[in-house]
Amino acid sequence: MTAIHAFLIDIDGVLYVGDRPIEGADRALRELDRRGIPYRFVSNTTRRSRASVARRLESLGYTIPEAWVITAPVAAAAHLKEGGRTRCFLLTTSDARTDFEGAGIRAVEENPDAVVVADAAEGFTYENMNRAFRLLLSGADLVALEKDRYWMGSDGLMLSAGPFAAALEYATGREAEVIGKPSPAFFFRALAETGARPEEAAMVGDDIVTDIGGAQACGMRGIQVRTGKYREETLAWSGITPDLVIDSLADLPEYL
Amino acid sequence: MTAIHAFLIDIDGVLYVGDRPIEGADRALRELDRRGIPYRFVSNTTRRSRASVARRLESLGYTIPEAWVITAPVAAAAHLKEGGRTRCFLLTTSDARTDFEGAGIRAVEENPDAVVVADAAEGFTYENMNRAFRLLLSGADLVALEKDRYWMGSDGLMLSAGPFAAALEYATGREAEVIGKPSPAFFFRALAETGARPEEAAMVGDDIVTDIGGAQACGMRGIQVRTGKYREETLAWSGITPDLVIDSLADLPEYL
Repeated sequence: MTAIHAFLIDIDGVLYVGDRPIEGADRALRELDRRGIPYRFVSNTTRRSRASVARRLESLGYTIPEAWVITAPVAAAAHLKEGGRTRCFLLTTSDARTDFEGAGIRAVEENPDAVVVADAAEGFTYENMNRAFRLLLSGADLVALEKDRYWMGSDGLMLSAGPFAAALEYATGREAEVIGKPSPAFFFRALAETGARPEEAAMVGDDIVTDIGGAQACGMRGIQVRTGKYREETLAWSGITPDLVIDSLADLPEYL
Repeated sequence: MTAIHAFLIDIDGVLYVGDRPIEGADRALRELDRRGIPYRFVSNTTRRSRASVARRLESLGYTIPEAWVITAPVAAAAHLKEGGRTRCFLLTTSDARTDFEGAGIRAVEENPDAVVVADAAEGFTYENMNRAFRLLLSGADLVALEKDRYWMGSDGLMLSAGPFAAALEYATGREAEVIGKPSPAFFFRALAETGARPEEAAMVGDDIVTDIGGAQACGMRGIQVRTGKYREETLAWSGITPDLVIDSLADLPEYL
């Protein structure tokens, strides 16, 4: 590979899986620091607020500034606020909700500007899904923080926001506006903080579609790790070819 | 219209909406009886067992033999049993479950032959959806009793099984086998009981896609009623042209 001057790095499945940090990942980050290569974290984990993600990383032994963590809820809150869509029905966890409230978005159950679908976990009740559906029919915009299919939890695969956003798309015949990966705006927002151009940067992730395919579509290189939700058959099925496949983030310094 | 010798009639939205019977619908059925025109009821209402649907119709003033009511759960249970798929994870209400148990299908949470998606209402929890997802990845078949988008409840539109089946399709990248309308097997099963050929029969329903489009694809005529979930814009958007549009089932005798 030709030299890479900046990295975007996925969090869930790359820095940790469930409650276990990926061995050697922290050492790899310190090697990037030592070489002065900038990096930022881009996450489609939409269950947690940015503060909560940062605390979790700290508890797992990582020393990462909160501002380096760019999550879909934070990006969505900023994007909605900029567009004047400040009344939202939030199909999110209560933790993720704090990122919206902190950005001046009001959580409402009537006449919202948008229905916002994150990974609401136990919040995906029939009642909430039906309410979202009716609000969409009344004219609210459909905004999905991500359309990931699933992620790897501590006891197995867990459905992400994608299937539930797809359910509302199917019910309404409309398409969701996607905020997180693989939305180019999301990658470029993170990339801008590193000062690198897309062709100088690489994305490291465990999701072949949103991480690798998404990054490549933006002109970046895509580095697939074999941790987290990685499955060889998914790679084959996707039709996407990573620029590099490594066992885990720990191996990144070998290729610098 | 040329003469029609048999009718298939939808139930929810055609015989009643919420807790109210459609005015004049019962009189129309008695007119069919008087003229000796056979009819059967075909319903994608998958929340209730056949016995429960029949009791409900009785409570609303209808006199309809239970055997004339052909529901997706009853058809699905017979179909699964015939194919030897007798261990199923049932994403259904407990009422609909009785149709499966009565047909010899065992409800299991491990190693099922199939994941069966009906309108499970409050049973569509995150936990159940995630369990269904994991069982599908382990090789269980995905069977949807219907893929309707929604139905008209007493206080507004209600999501049906379709969006949740679509969520599981999105999560797994697989396509559900659909049992209820508009599956031709379902129409033909009901039609066989009337003795009529498709070209001699008409389907009366409120869903332009599954009722009207589905019947027309089977060679039957499709009669749209303006009750239930009927909306003029949905008709226009569908690209489907009913053979006849009537205000309600009460008006059917005028066109015999």
